[in-house]
Amino acid sequence: MTTRITELFGIQYPIIQAGMVWVSGWRLASAVSAAGGLGLIGSGSMNPELLAEHIRKARQATERPLGVNIPLLRGDAEDLVRVTIDEGIRIVFTSAGHPGKYLSLMKDAGCVVAHVVPSLKHAKKVESVGCDAVVAEGFEAGGHNGYEETTTLSLLPIVADAVGIPLIAAGGIADGRQMLAAFALGAEGVQIGTRFAATVESSAHDVFKQKIVESGDGDTVLTLRKLAPVRLIRTPFAQRAVEAEARGAGKEELAELLGRKREKRGMFEGDLEEGEFEAGQSATLVRTIDTAADVLRNLLSEYRGATARLPEIPES
Amino acid sequence: MTTRITELFGIQYPIIQAGMVWVSGWRLASAVSAAGGLGLIGSGSMNPELLAEHIRKARQATERPLGVNIPLLRGDAEDLVRVTIDEGIRIVFTSAGHPGKYLSLMKDAGCVVAHVVPSLKHAKKVESVGCDAVVAEGFEAGGHNGYEETTTLSLLPIVADAVGIPLIAAGGIADGRQMLAAFALGAEGVQIGTRFAATVESSAHDVFKQKIVESGDGDTVLTLRKLAPVRLIRTPFAQRAVEAEARGAGKEELAELLGRKREKRGMFEGDLEEGEFEAGQSATLVRTIDTAADVLRNLLSEYRGATARLPEIPES
Repeated sequence: MTTRITELFGIQYPIIQAGMVWVSGWRLASAVSAAGGLGLIGSGSMNPELLAEHIRKARQATERPLGVNIPLLRGDAEDLVRVTIDEGIRIVFTSAGHPGKYLSLMKDAGCVVAHVVPSLKHAKKVESVGCDAVVAEGFEAGGHNGYEETTTLSLLPIVADAVGIPLIAAGGIADGRQMLAAFALGAEGVQIGTRFAATVESSAHDVFKQKIVESGDGDTVLTLRKLAPVRLIRTPFAQRAVEAEARGAGKEELAELLGRKREKRGMFEGDLEEGEFEAGQSATLVRTIDTAADVLRNLLSEYRGATARLPEIPES
Repeated sequence: MTTRITELFGIQYPIIQAGMVWVSGWRLASAVSAAGGLGLIGSGSMNPELLAEHIRKARQATERPLGVNIPLLRGDAEDLVRVTIDEGIRIVFTSAGHPGKYLSLMKDAGCVVAHVVPSLKHAKKVESVGCDAVVAEGFEAGGHNGYEETTTLSLLPIVADAVGIPLIAAGGIADGRQMLAAFALGAEGVQIGTRFAATVESSAHDVFKQKIVESGDGDTVLTLRKLAPVRLIRTPFAQRAVEAEARGAGKEELAELLGRKREKRGMFEGDLEEGEFEAGQSATLVRTIDTAADVLRNLLSEYRGATARLPEIPES
């Protein structure tokens, strides 16, 4: 399967496992890469030393291309970038910050750089600063989200029309039908989070994996809009955030409510009451905890099946 | 182009023009039907006498199948149903209410009935009461919207998996790429609103049509969540609603702020300051005011183009 994305990253299938805090360490990333996709180590929950360790273990586990996701808003983002380069990684997905930050550092080292955005305006900036690809992520995505609330279906075609660099679709994609939809909309690759969070190789706590599997329609919610919009599974903490928002709580009150370390307490430690569990609307489609390789296999076979079912329009 | 939707309604293309208040009178509906799609007269802004007049004019303008959209929450919904049947219409799209309401009345008269829903739970109910098709409408849709905030990309596959009746996709669809995406996700037809609101034959005020054409990414917003969630173009009134919501305004305050007749003042009379302008995120893709026939032609040619660009996965 060849697109500009498979060629850019040197991978077999244009399927990228999203870098996720507390979830995508070396085990998940290397499993996805070994199966022909692109695995990303999520450095957002790692200090530079731990990141170096994860990169080494992942590179021992597979010789295939691997990437790292780096949130640019982190105070020590430059250290994460340097460790990534020093440890031999040449694929970087940046997010949460200005796409031009540390870009020349990475390009000088020979990196291919993609940047994640939630809106058309940001996508244009990604191209203008010189990134190699753009990830357009819709409202249905788990975790941090944009203020425009533009959905994947609405965002992809306008970004495809506006930029010349290859487009990766993110947000709401868990099966091969949705992957085909993303390609119909102009994407040349897909970035998948929630589906990979609930795999055998994910470092998410079993409680988190189980919550994803059990989630039905309406069981995630975008909240903390005045602070930094985030999509969460409706656990007790998320519900408290929703209620605070509904009564008009301001940024400060929300920041206090959120406090610290809720991501770790939820996704890594499995604290259902106080933790935060980031997941996308596609959780509804995740019904089993599979291996990463099986997820890829299923995506490809569902993609083929959905392609075969498409009705043709006769030329009139 | 044959799907269960073209067969159910006896139409050439599985493209349905949404019934829209103040926008889709006889002129738009008959133009869409004459061009091979299915036009719906939106009875939501009509009394029964006016609806009868629109149906007569539409039936004079085309002999092809035509439908009527009826919001079931209206106090006089039964009158609208009876007028629809008496004037010879045999295709009804119901919305905003229990899908079983007046269903036997319509089925006894030989009607084909589809019902519009925003969630999986409601979709299952539509099938269980005996409707012939279900319209699943995502968060990106203009106008009234669901509480789950499920996007079209997330909603379609779970509904397709859960119901046996034909599925029509709605919300966020303005071009042929999005139509193809909807089919990839399991739909057999598409219902399109905003793109048809900005056509020559639409009875929307020119100011409304122009606002749609000018809308960019992020220029619509879902608001009035505590009252009845609705997606609006960000005009001064919408902005006031958003601000009231942010400071925690309750249902009563929002109801007072909304007042009455804002839909008419906006969409039909073009009052930019005080009016309400319902449009979906797909407004971003509407760049010209075309005839309904041209919209259909473009949808079909974009669908073909997008199909030809889909990458194939070789069997491994």
